[in-house]
Amino acid sequence: MCTKSEAYSPTQNNHKQSQTNSTEQSSKLIEAPPLGQSLTTPLPRAGLSPAFHARRKRLTGSFPCGLWSSEEEPCLECFNSPYGTNYFPEYAEKIPGETTQKLSEVAKESSIYLIGGSIPEEDAGKLYNTCPVFGPDGNLLVKHKKIHLFDIDVPGKITFQESKTLSPGDSFSTFDTRCQLLVYPGAFNLTTGPAHWELLQRARAVDNQVYVATASPARDDKASYVVWGHSTVVDPWGQVLTKAGTEETILYSDIDLKKLAEIRQQIPILKQKRADLYTVETKKP
Amino acid sequence: MCTKSEAYSPTQNNHKQSQTNSTEQSSKLIEAPPLGQSLTTPLPRAGLSPAFHARRKRLTGSFPCGLWSSEEEPCLECFNSPYGTNYFPEYAEKIPGETTQKLSEVAKESSIYLIGGSIPEEDAGKLYNTCPVFGPDGNLLVKHKKIHLFDIDVPGKITFQESKTLSPGDSFSTFDTRCQLLVYPGAFNLTTGPAHWELLQRARAVDNQVYVATASPARDDKASYVVWGHSTVVDPWGQVLTKAGTEETILYSDIDLKKLAEIRQQIPILKQKRADLYTVETKKP
Repeated sequence: MCTKSEAYSPTQNNHKQSQTNSTEQSSKLIEAPPLGQSLTTPLPRAGLSPAFHARRKRLTGSFPCGLWSSEEEPCLECFNSPYGTNYFPEYAEKIPGETTQKLSEVAKESSIYLIGGSIPEEDAGKLYNTCPVFGPDGNLLVKHKKIHLFDIDVPGKITFQESKTLSPGDSFSTFDTRCQLLVYPGAFNLTTGPAHWELLQRARAVDNQVYVATASPARDDKASYVVWGHSTVVDPWGQVLTKAGTEETILYSDIDLKKLAEIRQQIPILKQKRADLYTVETKKP
Repeated sequence: MCTKSEAYSPTQNNHKQSQTNSTEQSSKLIEAPPLGQSLTTPLPRAGLSPAFHARRKRLTGSFPCGLWSSEEEPCLECFNSPYGTNYFPEYAEKIPGETTQKLSEVAKESSIYLIGGSIPEEDAGKLYNTCPVFGPDGNLLVKHKKIHLFDIDVPGKITFQESKTLSPGDSFSTFDTRCQLLVYPGAFNLTTGPAHWELLQRARAVDNQVYVATASPARDDKASYVVWGHSTVVDPWGQVLTKAGTEETILYSDIDLKKLAEIRQQIPILKQKRADLYTVETKKP
């Protein structure tokens, strides 16, 4: 789940300048990841069916970075489990483990960066909400343990506490592709969704002058935690490029790195950043 | 002008916890500042007419913090001057000076905190976009020199550079009232206004779980810099409470500190802040 404060987490943040080479111009239109939103219950334990392997073929070509997700095999938040604190202990896996091994194979066979949503991870006797990311060679680049767990208690509407069963991570993690894209696998609910889901991703896009993509599970009105849905892609000007409804679907969108560079030139907030006056420091816990 | 990055500036940020006493409960409804939006050209040099003094009477009572602004005497961005880099040298004043002396008198006579919009300030041979704030005793609490100047160049739409004639400030400045309110005197334009004006203030409200009030000049289609208008008050959930159009007007809104406290309890992002992992440090230039 992507909380407001976690939107600043650099883990899924590919904010570094694109390192282009002679064959990949910064002006090149790069196909954005297919953003699926899918029902997450019930799923096979490992979550990856033969259809997943058939569909990954689409990911070759000009596709340097992907958040893979389809209606059969969503790589969303805690995608190998129903979303609910009571399910996490049962569905938790080690990393590497069955699910991440399959993600690694897909990344390698398709030569893509693969942001694997997240799964409940068991590590040294604790459970984490962990997002694994694989490189085109199938290697695990990053596993980010969610550091801001999502607790909410709005009387009469929703009460939910990730912190009941999950532990927070304690470090940042970054990886570099050529995408200039923030990706948030998230699962907002019917209380925060209409109020904050689109607002926060549009704000992060404008604040950082980057593209933002979010992937939500589809809505299941019978689930204990009913999600908002509405997976979305936003451009660096804050405009919604494409947005799902509440049903299962797959979205495609283009990421125009030329447009991104133009916007950064038009309103040069990065140049006007006052590193002489303030800095964000990371600390070791 | 309030740029995106300046939205983080703590100067006009009253984010500290309210210090309530026995006579002022945190649950008390506090009348929000009247937010005016006014035509800023032409203005008397000092910008404060007898009508200003008549209207200030409204500000007594349960009114601890005010952004004073009316159709005759706006305390908006560079309110004693037409908004344009070519006008700033002519209209710039020292602080203390003619305009700020009058603001001080109004603050004292009405026993209010008075956020004086901003004026072009001449200081040691340089010009700044400076926001003066006065306490209920008429003392100058803060003068904040805008640190992120607003430059924009969108070909065919708008080109404007504050940095042509203004210098940036080099320090943060805070002041404490009981308002838990971010106030931005700002002047977005017809390019950034529809895209970013409401988005950024709603995002800052949700990010910080505070009320946000913005005050814009009214629109003058004949001005060299045509502003967006739409002065707004947003609650800590990101909802727009009241919003002006493009015409001259005055807005009133209630600030419900009980609601603010409830929202902070419902989604406890401040408690989940990971001071063990990151910190924002300010530096001396």
